[in-house]
Amino acid sequence: MSNTILTVDALHGRVDAIFRKAGLNATQAGSIARVIVAAERDACKSHGVYRIEGALRTVKAGKVKPDAVPELLPQDAPAIVKVDAKGGFANPAFELGLPALAERARACGIAALAINDAVHFSALWAEVEALTQAGLAGLAMCPSYATVAPAGGNGPLLGTNPFAFGWPREKQPPYVFDFATSVAARGEIELHRRAGKKLPEGWAVDSQGRPTTDPEAALAGAMLSFGGHKGSAIGTMIELLAGIMIGDLTSPEALDLLGTTTLFPKHGELIIAFSPAAFAAGRPGDPFARAEALFEAIVGQGARLPSQRRFLARATAEREGISLSTQEIEQFDRLLAQGLGGV
Amino acid sequence: MSNTILTVDALHGRVDAIFRKAGLNATQAGSIARVIVAAERDACKSHGVYRIEGALRTVKAGKVKPDAVPELLPQDAPAIVKVDAKGGFANPAFELGLPALAERARACGIAALAINDAVHFSALWAEVEALTQAGLAGLAMCPSYATVAPAGGNGPLLGTNPFAFGWPREKQPPYVFDFATSVAARGEIELHRRAGKKLPEGWAVDSQGRPTTDPEAALAGAMLSFGGHKGSAIGTMIELLAGIMIGDLTSPEALDLLGTTTLFPKHGELIIAFSPAAFAAGRPGDPFARAEALFEAIVGQGARLPSQRRFLARATAEREGISLSTQEIEQFDRLLAQGLGGV
Repeated sequence: MSNTILTVDALHGRVDAIFRKAGLNATQAGSIARVIVAAERDACKSHGVYRIEGALRTVKAGKVKPDAVPELLPQDAPAIVKVDAKGGFANPAFELGLPALAERARACGIAALAINDAVHFSALWAEVEALTQAGLAGLAMCPSYATVAPAGGNGPLLGTNPFAFGWPREKQPPYVFDFATSVAARGEIELHRRAGKKLPEGWAVDSQGRPTTDPEAALAGAMLSFGGHKGSAIGTMIELLAGIMIGDLTSPEALDLLGTTTLFPKHGELIIAFSPAAFAAGRPGDPFARAEALFEAIVGQGARLPSQRRFLARATAEREGISLSTQEIEQFDRLLAQGLGGV
Repeated sequence: MSNTILTVDALHGRVDAIFRKAGLNATQAGSIARVIVAAERDACKSHGVYRIEGALRTVKAGKVKPDAVPELLPQDAPAIVKVDAKGGFANPAFELGLPALAERARACGIAALAINDAVHFSALWAEVEALTQAGLAGLAMCPSYATVAPAGGNGPLLGTNPFAFGWPREKQPPYVFDFATSVAARGEIELHRRAGKKLPEGWAVDSQGRPTTDPEAALAGAMLSFGGHKGSAIGTMIELLAGIMIGDLTSPEALDLLGTTTLFPKHGELIIAFSPAAFAAGRPGDPFARAEALFEAIVGQGARLPSQRRFLARATAEREGISLSTQEIEQFDRLLAQGLGGV
């Protein structure tokens, strides 16, 4: 097995070309290529090139609009920015809304971006990182499709509902976490299934509500929330804020609409941006310098900051390129030649 | 042991009188009596009358200003409300800021209340419940003092950092959760210590970083976050947003200032209010009706909604009064007679 090394830009070019070949417009293709390549670059394999086929299958099934042009809607409330993704992917809608969100957060102190009618498959850390690059703290969340049982329940209702947060740092990559509110991300269960590995205990129940370590049974049953009733409560909050409140689908509604978990779901997303400068105004101390002392204390205990491994992988990829397997390169060639006929 | 039954109002009168006798002004006494009685009414014993002595000890030690009058500060950013608690308890500062927060959330769509220089001991559910009564969704969080080790660390750094959320319901008590981001609340470890009970596994490490089930050793060592690295990340986010960002103390700074965990700490608090009406405007469906369908689906699986037990206890207390032990009544009499001399 000889691996191929590609630069970040070269990988972007290939992934973008695959999506263009499949009929996506430049807005959609460029945006989702960026998040897929960013994940691959950061050694976040479950959201990397592995996702290309799922995105193409979703296009082929007619469940995402390949030519959607997201629209920034007129603002009624000064601290809310709304973007209609028009049935396209969530990522170009986020890119469109980001400057307005940052501007509103600076002007109001806190602001929110609601994205509607978006097909979603990407990790949220890219979005909170983009906010930190604008000097803002950010919180992002969205439903998914019903695959997680609420604490004390016995069937899929909540989504894996990711929850991500970022805080800007001047001389270091930002403080960023992004995790599924299920014990594991659905992608991790998929990877166990592909690898023929059993799941750790406590990840899932089967379709009868019984604990299981079989990935197939877990995918047919329900996953569990992280942290018991507390994680389940956060997952429910995400259904309320990033589904119902913004007038978009909850995870059970998204699954009903799609009818399968093998394609990517359509729903909304909520991103909250905070201006530390506005909140800290008139108070002693520089918030960014004080945050560094907190991070030093964490690292000083021998603990790792979240995303630390991802940022190390990024530095390596930017220096040495991204290593892809022969199988992955062959997949690129096939998809570039055949477009949607290849999935 | 014959118990005494008091109405909610009668218990409020007694608790308020105890704090007035101890030298608190009407603003401070009335406000903290309200949250203590609300907790006792809801059978939330760890935040009920059990907290009276701690509050009085904190007054006696000069660590809270008994005559503080909180001040609503001029607003610079339209979606931020700032209240200076002036070294008094957090609760009157919240009561002062609430109308402005609700008004700003309705006008801007989302808004935040930052409370500074406040002594804190109460549960946050009372605050998010107050927002739901105004038709708003709410999220509240604050640091505490350093008692929790970050994931992968070995000593106290994070606080128990509560995280609370509320969603309004028309014909039912609101959807509310409020939990410590530590596995357990510090109050629960205290209650185990008082009862001479061992802690469950996984709650804490001793001062050497070794797992322990001894409440004394846990109080001398560090508690652990709920949900492993995910809960630890949320606890860290709370230090950043509700400590550093609002220009107030982190949990290690609060502990350094106080020098003990036997009194209540001084720090800040962050409350975020969302207007579901503003977020849902122009989108299909009524968010409140749609939320009911989600709650029905949760309950339909045999799962409980968070706070359900608390609301049942409240209904009973409002109908039948609050039952207090002879020991608790004797404590009231002693404190009413002796004021700060009784602690």
